[in-house]
Amino acid sequence: MSNNIKRRKFIETSAKSMAAAGLITTAPLLSTKVNNLEKLFIHHVYFWLKKPVTGEVKAKFENALKKLVTIETIVDFHLGVPAGTSRDVIDTSYSYSLLVTFKNKADQDLYQPHPIHQKFIADCQDLWEKVVVYDSVSI
Amino acid sequence: MSNNIKRRKFIETSAKSMAAAGLITTAPLLSTKVNNLEKLFIHHVYFWLKKPVTGEVKAKFENALKKLVTIETIVDFHLGVPAGTSRDVIDTSYSYSLLVTFKNKADQDLYQPHPIHQKFIADCQDLWEKVVVYDSVSI
Repeated sequence: MSNNIKRRKFIETSAKSMAAAGLITTAPLLSTKVNNLEKLFIHHVYFWLKKPVTGEVKAKFENALKKLVTIETIVDFHLGVPAGTSRDVIDTSYSYSLLVTFKNKADQDLYQPHPIHQKFIADCQDLWEKVVVYDSVSI
Repeated sequence: MSNNIKRRKFIETSAKSMAAAGLITTAPLLSTKVNNLEKLFIHHVYFWLKKPVTGEVKAKFENALKKLVTIETIVDFHLGVPAGTSRDVIDTSYSYSLLVTFKNKADQDLYQPHPIHQKFIADCQDLWEKVVVYDSVSI
């Protein structure tokens, strides 16, 4: 093998070992630009909960969100609340943001009827007064 | 050194080499759940362009978006269009989705006045009729 091929094989083998060991998905990636998102299916849901949003309601809803994002076809997720920014164009009126990414639309299609997702809706739909979803695929 | 320490050092060194070579941010990560998003600042912008959205307008806007996401403090990004999904709660009326992530609010604050961002606004603001922004931080 040429040195280039050897080097490539070394890198591929190391990458597989580290991926298997769960070692290449954490801190180092946060500090530099990455392109994990670029080709994914983006499913972003904004929830407006019925007022008053008590501590009890928050706890119930946040626990339900944490359970929801265990669905297998989800690649990555972000459970959020408004960031405290303020400009004319910013909508800060929602209660919770649920951002989940999928490899493709087929994986999102598996998520919708998933029992965990259906249980989330059944358990929590009385808590919200409005939901808006934006699904996006790469340009 | 013990074998365990040697192995750990080997893995750390390999990870650094591969990160430097840009080799560990692609396919292997897409196939498994990762948690890069979880602690980030999420800045999601939806653009409704003025009709008719011609091919020329699309090309201009997409090129401007691609330039915009070169701003240094952006961790990751997704440039999107509606995914073709359809349910009552899904808003499919927007023209473009711009999702960018930052390490924290301070990095987002640097992005706003950045010359590349200001040029994007100056060059493209006549193209859109409506913009809605949702900024989210982790629960």
